[in-house]
Amino acid sequence: MAEFTFIDALRRILPGAPRLTIPPGDDTAELLLGGAPVLLAADMLLEGTHFTLADAGAELVGRKALAVNLSDVAAMAGTPAAALVSLALPRAGGLELARGVMAGIAALAAEYGVLVVGGDTNCWDGPLAVNVAIAGEAHPRGSVRRSGARPGDGVWVTGALGGSIRGRHLRFPPRVAEAAALHSRYGITAMIDLSDGLGGDLRHILAESGVGAVIDKAAIPVHPDAGGWEQAVSDGEDFELCFTLPAGVEPQLAGLALTRIGVITSDPDKNLLFTDGSVPPGGYAHRLG
Amino acid sequence: MAEFTFIDALRRILPGAPRLTIPPGDDTAELLLGGAPVLLAADMLLEGTHFTLADAGAELVGRKALAVNLSDVAAMAGTPAAALVSLALPRAGGLELARGVMAGIAALAAEYGVLVVGGDTNCWDGPLAVNVAIAGEAHPRGSVRRSGARPGDGVWVTGALGGSIRGRHLRFPPRVAEAAALHSRYGITAMIDLSDGLGGDLRHILAESGVGAVIDKAAIPVHPDAGGWEQAVSDGEDFELCFTLPAGVEPQLAGLALTRIGVITSDPDKNLLFTDGSVPPGGYAHRLG
Repeated sequence: MAEFTFIDALRRILPGAPRLTIPPGDDTAELLLGGAPVLLAADMLLEGTHFTLADAGAELVGRKALAVNLSDVAAMAGTPAAALVSLALPRAGGLELARGVMAGIAALAAEYGVLVVGGDTNCWDGPLAVNVAIAGEAHPRGSVRRSGARPGDGVWVTGALGGSIRGRHLRFPPRVAEAAALHSRYGITAMIDLSDGLGGDLRHILAESGVGAVIDKAAIPVHPDAGGWEQAVSDGEDFELCFTLPAGVEPQLAGLALTRIGVITSDPDKNLLFTDGSVPPGGYAHRLG
Repeated sequence: MAEFTFIDALRRILPGAPRLTIPPGDDTAELLLGGAPVLLAADMLLEGTHFTLADAGAELVGRKALAVNLSDVAAMAGTPAAALVSLALPRAGGLELARGVMAGIAALAAEYGVLVVGGDTNCWDGPLAVNVAIAGEAHPRGSVRRSGARPGDGVWVTGALGGSIRGRHLRFPPRVAEAAALHSRYGITAMIDLSDGLGGDLRHILAESGVGAVIDKAAIPVHPDAGGWEQAVSDGEDFELCFTLPAGVEPQLAGLALTRIGVITSDPDKNLLFTDGSVPPGGYAHRLG
């Protein structure tokens, strides 16, 4: 069951509800609670599937479990406010693991002004599982969805891409303040965080917006940890942002590289193409089984 | 690490924050989001620790994972609005399990008007883990905390207690509408849901409120599934409500038994006593390791 099958399942069981202003399938859902738009998302990291304790250590596992959620809220241009942490702890060494995971979460939470307001913890005979659920506030201009890209919009990315497996996937800074500032100043039309790789994630924007895109291979900002553009397009877990802005807008942000890599097209087949007509590789897709 | 050690850990890492109107340690936290009070909680059910699939089946595991969260929101007199579901699925049969768990969640969510707005799902080499995080709206009169019991208040319980292990722990109806109606009509002063047994949970109200209580053994409503008052006091997972009301208030609610079992006292040692002076047994405490 791929992630998108899960989202399809959620969509099938959801009744129509006016309060659900952004349904499952975007980086977060958005729901009116007491009249205010609240962003909600969750991510679960599993030992052996998403990390090994020998490589990452408990603190960085905790840090990442919160960071991926902050990145989801950033991709809506929202502000994360509160996290709920649930831990399934192996019986052997569970208390030490819990301390490490919570220390990693607490440090990042403090850095981003997020309150850890609850959760659950239990020991069992299984491996370590860490679930973080996040609640956030929507941007005053409204949340940025994947579905707002229009023909002629520029396609932009933050930072540099590829090779995050060399360590950045554990230590990346979620682009929360940057996304909010960009949306305030420039009015972002569509956005996604790069968790599965540019090739795959940009296609989600195209699918949801009903548009195509042509991107310039030579313009893609390749991280020094990556071998070349192929990795920058295909590697997952950059946790940079890919977003679109109206034609002619040239955004600037102190301290973070912003690169225009292409343009949205009116292609009814929603293709992603390089300027030479070739087809970029897809990104990494989380698959079950 | 017992559950309350985890809550202590959360309290230690939490900075003071005016927006956090109810900190960790109650049935849910309450946080102002966009100016509105939002209730947040999470519970994780683990195969082998909280359930066996052979006994419960996937659908009832899913139902319970949501139901315990609805019961937490009910204990604040709040209204649950949205759930996030995270599943760690064994590789063998994971898809079938996911379908069953989601079906159980979807049916209960529909019954309570709760939207399942997102989550996460992955396969791994471990057993089944189901985490549900819940967001809800606060009661217009304000959320009911554990800390509001005052000397002279009556101590009340809903339903009948004990022996839930015979099946009710998987099928209990969270008392959401009942709690909200009681609070609207009568102004509940303190409340908790009975997850760890009356003896243990009522002591949480006493500890948080700084009061004692004397209860009448003979008044405790014993469920037909329980052998007697001992089980009704000690057994966990009733998921009925224990609450306090100002002296003289005699609440009534169509369709649900409400029983006055005792009175709050000004005992500075916060003792829970039977009318004969004996000490009721504690409830079941979730322990790690």
